[in-house]
Amino acid sequence: MLVDHSTNLKSENTTRKRLVEAALYLFWKHGYAATGMAEILEHAKAKPGSFYYFFKTKEELLLAVLRLYAATLHPIVMDPVFAQTDDPVERVFAVLGFYRRNLIATGCTYGCPIGRLALEIGEEQVAVHKLLSDNFDGWTAAVESCLRDAGERLPQELDRSALSRFVLTVMEGGVMQARAHRSLAPFDASVAQLRNYFRLLQDEQKRLRAA
Amino acid sequence: MLVDHSTNLKSENTTRKRLVEAALYLFWKHGYAATGMAEILEHAKAKPGSFYYFFKTKEELLLAVLRLYAATLHPIVMDPVFAQTDDPVERVFAVLGFYRRNLIATGCTYGCPIGRLALEIGEEQVAVHKLLSDNFDGWTAAVESCLRDAGERLPQELDRSALSRFVLTVMEGGVMQARAHRSLAPFDASVAQLRNYFRLLQDEQKRLRAA
Repeated sequence: MLVDHSTNLKSENTTRKRLVEAALYLFWKHGYAATGMAEILEHAKAKPGSFYYFFKTKEELLLAVLRLYAATLHPIVMDPVFAQTDDPVERVFAVLGFYRRNLIATGCTYGCPIGRLALEIGEEQVAVHKLLSDNFDGWTAAVESCLRDAGERLPQELDRSALSRFVLTVMEGGVMQARAHRSLAPFDASVAQLRNYFRLLQDEQKRLRAA
Repeated sequence: MLVDHSTNLKSENTTRKRLVEAALYLFWKHGYAATGMAEILEHAKAKPGSFYYFFKTKEELLLAVLRLYAATLHPIVMDPVFAQTDDPVERVFAVLGFYRRNLIATGCTYGCPIGRLALEIGEEQVAVHKLLSDNFDGWTAAVESCLRDAGERLPQELDRSALSRFVLTVMEGGVMQARAHRSLAPFDASVAQLRNYFRLLQDEQKRLRAA
């Protein structure tokens, strides 16, 4: 019985996982409103009954998707990116490089799934926006840790939390324009301006320390 | 007969206008996929026949909406904003102030309609993305004209076209995060960083001219 029970649990977990992963893909590819239940079930190779066993509503499934994004931020995005370089400032630009590669791999049709949902999901879906902002917070916290690690290379009075929000702004705004233009150019232009800002910040800090 | 003809024309134009304005509102409020034909007709107080008299498809209506956004950019956004100040650098920040007021007026639920559609519309709808990028181009051209007007206040070698894309990036990324967080803070943080970048650019230019 123990074996049967564990097998059932495993099968339940696998079905749930398939539903969440199918929804993650479809919400990213087509958006939340444009994705129907039938499409999710077909992608997940699941039956309607199994959906309602795990989730009361489509919104509950979306919440599970957003929890999965938050849980995979470090293993999928930040850890491999941070492994590329030990330099804290270069790590910030390596994070942006991750999104540039996504743009290249998709012929500049990539859209950030969190950013897309932040603009799509209705304001009344408060629990969804809470998890969207948690995802943004996780991303900016990782960038902020690099900015703190940069220590005295950046001016002491610089608001590193605000700068981490700014880096996310650059990623989101750059990806959005690249998708509309079907070109890397607006993304690269934005990152180049951020690079110039970092150059000026580091130059200012050198002058402050020399004074 | 001439009178009747002109009355018909006027009535046709009015119905078409109502359809485009209803779609503009609904695509902004709920997105493209989530807006059904019935909702558009109800909002526009129009009959299905009158819709198909003017538009073959929902996509054609969307293209008309995007042409309306492009045509109203200056009278609705840029002209009133530029009237606030003659200072070209302050004009750039006054444009961002326009979006801040939209955020305040909507309890930070505002999303830029062009940015939202840039992330929502499927990559296969090439004509739509062309008009979305045209809208972005119109916006950045207006900002770039301010940056050119700033003349020698900014470094000569500064890529003003790239900087205008960066300003749009700041608006779009800031609005997106403000909507997720339901707070002005991430928008204000991003604009403050852009302000700091402009300060450093102007300081650099002063040093270059003094050298």
